[in-house]
Amino acid sequence: MRNIALLIEYDGIGFHGWQSQKDLRNVQDELAGAIQKITGDRPVVTGCSRTDAGVHAKGHVSNFKSDIRVPVDKIPIALNSKLPDDISVLKALEVSDSFHARFDAVGKEYRYRIIFGQSRPSLDRNRAYYSGSGLDIPTMQKATGSLVGTHDFKAFMASGSEVKTTIRTIYALDVVSVENGVDILVKGDGFLYNMVRIIAGTLFYVGNGRFRAEDVSGMIESGDRRNTGKTLPAYGLYLEKVFYSDGLFGYNI
Amino acid sequence: MRNIALLIEYDGIGFHGWQSQKDLRNVQDELAGAIQKITGDRPVVTGCSRTDAGVHAKGHVSNFKSDIRVPVDKIPIALNSKLPDDISVLKALEVSDSFHARFDAVGKEYRYRIIFGQSRPSLDRNRAYYSGSGLDIPTMQKATGSLVGTHDFKAFMASGSEVKTTIRTIYALDVVSVENGVDILVKGDGFLYNMVRIIAGTLFYVGNGRFRAEDVSGMIESGDRRNTGKTLPAYGLYLEKVFYSDGLFGYNI
Repeated sequence: MRNIALLIEYDGIGFHGWQSQKDLRNVQDELAGAIQKITGDRPVVTGCSRTDAGVHAKGHVSNFKSDIRVPVDKIPIALNSKLPDDISVLKALEVSDSFHARFDAVGKEYRYRIIFGQSRPSLDRNRAYYSGSGLDIPTMQKATGSLVGTHDFKAFMASGSEVKTTIRTIYALDVVSVENGVDILVKGDGFLYNMVRIIAGTLFYVGNGRFRAEDVSGMIESGDRRNTGKTLPAYGLYLEKVFYSDGLFGYNI
Repeated sequence: MRNIALLIEYDGIGFHGWQSQKDLRNVQDELAGAIQKITGDRPVVTGCSRTDAGVHAKGHVSNFKSDIRVPVDKIPIALNSKLPDDISVLKALEVSDSFHARFDAVGKEYRYRIIFGQSRPSLDRNRAYYSGSGLDIPTMQKATGSLVGTHDFKAFMASGSEVKTTIRTIYALDVVSVENGVDILVKGDGFLYNMVRIIAGTLFYVGNGRFRAEDVSGMIESGDRRNTGKTLPAYGLYLEKVFYSDGLFGYNI
């Protein structure tokens, strides 16, 4: 059996997230179904991570084991011809038998986009969170310093989640000005449930003046979800890159 | 009665174009309906131009006469609260009683976006035309020279259209490299039916090697639609700006 890794893009709006769920449209089942149309067998497709309903991906990584006979460089075109138009396979690679898209991932990069201005966007309505008031980008940038590094991010996790540890490392966190808005780019070894959307919501409150930049380190220390910002909606979030120790798909942490 | 000019953005995918049509969703009727919800009266909304089904707008201009009492700077927020989320009023201005969005327009700017690469886009599937092969941008840029200026653009008009004259002036035509693709920006005094999409299709054929850059001036001279490129699909086209002699909304030709 070959072990094939896929780099995919999808528009999260039409999916109840990555994970297979009965009677709810999801990316995992669409991929398995498209592979089955080519090979006749329905494989298990292992994803680097679940994404929530509405979250987009520009570089989600998954893998599946199959006797598929299509040359690896033709797999994207073959699968794209069977997939719905809101999923696109960007690249495929043949990987070692032991490769596991989730267990082998050593880091991920997400982007959260906020658009601001007098009028809500129409063309980008499912692509970014809209803020009626402008945001103070330099102050948001100042606040990022407290978040970078290894911390207990309990205050940035959706309450009720169960994990072994809430300690995570953020390698980089950038607030970048874009046309009519701002992108929050965060790279880390792993993220707690809703962590990126709560970081984005906290920086959003720093940007609109509700929080002060210097308060963020106290929020981390408190470990209390009630002290951090709101969870921004899923449709502004993009899984950009997944990192593996061998630099799979050309992405190195 | 006040005369109000609107600058609007819309996602063309959900509309059968700008123009009012019975039982077919269109932008003009949505705007009239939103104004009626505020004022109680349904006004005639005059557009700068029709756009075809699927064509997007980032700066469409229209005007309507009404006794609306909302201060002009609050009209965008008031209308956006009544409009569906694929239309957004960006700005409103009170204009002279004689202003007519269509008759007074002295020029327009359109953008056509082509994305290329190995895989069709999913996030941008309704935002750009996809080309499986790459395009030679410098050669496309070379071809623009023949099109700029005043010409008989009969060969760039959908056959069967009826107009008084097929002479138009293109003030500027730029082919600009963007992430994974190219934008074709064209500014002119007016455009024949499908003219921008045929110009884009002709430059697309120049970019993929089917046409030579130096053949374009002969195509214009021929006046024959059969010599020019295919009409690229509506969903890659954006009405960007409409120009008025007084620089309405800050746009000067």
